[in-house]
Amino acid sequence: MLLNVGTFIRSASRFSPFIITHSSLSSPSSFCFSFSPKQTVSFALQSSQMASFTTLSQSPPKLLFRQLFEKESSTYTYLLADCSHPDKPALLIDPVDRTVDRDLNLVKELGLKLIYAMNTHVHADHVTGTGLIKGKVPGVKSVISKASGSKADVFVEPGDKISFGDLFLEVRATPGHTMGCVTYVTGDGPDQPQPRMAFTGDALLIRGCGRTDFQGGSSQQLYKSVHSQIFTLPKETLLYPAHDYKGFSVTTVGEEMLYNPRLTKDEETFRNIMENLNLAYPKMIDVAVPANMVCGLQDLEPKAN
Amino acid sequence: MLLNVGTFIRSASRFSPFIITHSSLSSPSSFCFSFSPKQTVSFALQSSQMASFTTLSQSPPKLLFRQLFEKESSTYTYLLADCSHPDKPALLIDPVDRTVDRDLNLVKELGLKLIYAMNTHVHADHVTGTGLIKGKVPGVKSVISKASGSKADVFVEPGDKISFGDLFLEVRATPGHTMGCVTYVTGDGPDQPQPRMAFTGDALLIRGCGRTDFQGGSSQQLYKSVHSQIFTLPKETLLYPAHDYKGFSVTTVGEEMLYNPRLTKDEETFRNIMENLNLAYPKMIDVAVPANMVCGLQDLEPKAN
Repeated sequence: MLLNVGTFIRSASRFSPFIITHSSLSSPSSFCFSFSPKQTVSFALQSSQMASFTTLSQSPPKLLFRQLFEKESSTYTYLLADCSHPDKPALLIDPVDRTVDRDLNLVKELGLKLIYAMNTHVHADHVTGTGLIKGKVPGVKSVISKASGSKADVFVEPGDKISFGDLFLEVRATPGHTMGCVTYVTGDGPDQPQPRMAFTGDALLIRGCGRTDFQGGSSQQLYKSVHSQIFTLPKETLLYPAHDYKGFSVTTVGEEMLYNPRLTKDEETFRNIMENLNLAYPKMIDVAVPANMVCGLQDLEPKAN
Repeated sequence: MLLNVGTFIRSASRFSPFIITHSSLSSPSSFCFSFSPKQTVSFALQSSQMASFTTLSQSPPKLLFRQLFEKESSTYTYLLADCSHPDKPALLIDPVDRTVDRDLNLVKELGLKLIYAMNTHVHADHVTGTGLIKGKVPGVKSVISKASGSKADVFVEPGDKISFGDLFLEVRATPGHTMGCVTYVTGDGPDQPQPRMAFTGDALLIRGCGRTDFQGGSSQQLYKSVHSQIFTLPKETLLYPAHDYKGFSVTTVGEEMLYNPRLTKDEETFRNIMENLNLAYPKMIDVAVPANMVCGLQDLEPKAN
């Protein structure tokens, strides 16, 4: 499945995503921020990759990126947009109900057009903002994995591409925390952000991972998901989780492959760790999961917020 | 004053800070992350700035950047390092006592050499981690403004440059929240990160600013500081404050000039706003300020942590 808004513009330079480019502006509210990812990692590159530069013939897509935090559930919401596209199409990953107004106000201030409100999975610790957003911004489509079994406007499957302007996210299945967890990864290509960025939901957290003891969770499956779908990405790939409880904001594949206290272990040790966490029953689960299973229906009865 | 570690390497391209470059690695622990800033803003650039590209003759400096959050006081600590320098010299801006171990462990995992523990000002809402860090990592120097009146190893004044490897921070005086507040701005030059990044402390917050009713605060002075020292930076400059209470992580000069609810007002209106905030007495001030005034002395009696 290809959810496409706009068309691709190929640029001449493989390094083009890093170059500031010009865009004309008609009004203050239309000003637009482009993106060069927060960290790039040098160790995975060969010196031969530095040799060729050519003059740009066209502007490359520019990714606007903002990381937003919801304190109560320690959830990260991510705003991404293609600012080089005339529509400035944007998407939100893992919005939270209580911070919907903050997020939509930012979208408005930055002059973006929100097209997708997406979830990495059916959350158990907070109510998704997807339904509220649909009620407040006509035309926004909710997105979740088909494997989640929940309701939404668009169901994605592994290998699908979600396009916003000339940028896109690739869908990777990373079940194990829940049976429907996916990781959204920025595109692999010369016009896409480098290094790549992966929004891992609860599959992989910074120096941790999501629990595997409910919602169809499986430690065996999670181990396989992370090792086959996330640790196979380039080491410099930036990993943005759905939560952090210690104040970290980002990590990389290379860092987690060296320092993740659970997932650097062999599979049997990992399964033993996960089966002996003795975690409390999640306090929000009985409210959050039923609500999040119908995230696409919340728009029928939008809450006052 | 120029606090210099290493020498400058000039590269041929003005866009060089955006290009991934190669560095050889001798061991897993020495792996190194470089930086391309999180957002770049296109509206302030002219199309004439896009015209020239030349082949790099040398690797440009690479900035590693991490934003770290301390929940109790909603404080952001920033880790910056030059990863292209053999020593990988690093600095921490506004470290918090209770998250010192987290921060130092990250420094270690990333293979960095911490050389400075800096403060933007004498904080009233948390105890600085500077003294603890000095006790735990020999050789680290504490840095604060001379105007703060507090103790430290290095006192900086407006116009000073704080070098770490081939990168540097420029010191700008931004009093008004306290009399000794400074903003640290990444260097202005072809080898320095583009867009520039400013660590504004409490002078400018995202859509807000620090209070001006204690520690020598002055609304008149704060208004002048922000307008003359921060709003005069390029509009695309990324602003990283010492605090955020709503889950935002970054803003830009352009955004704050349009949307800051206080500082977009005329000076008289701003002063009226600040004089009528009716804020509670800060609960930590009687502990934090005396401790932070001697941040350079805490290392004599390092606490067990």
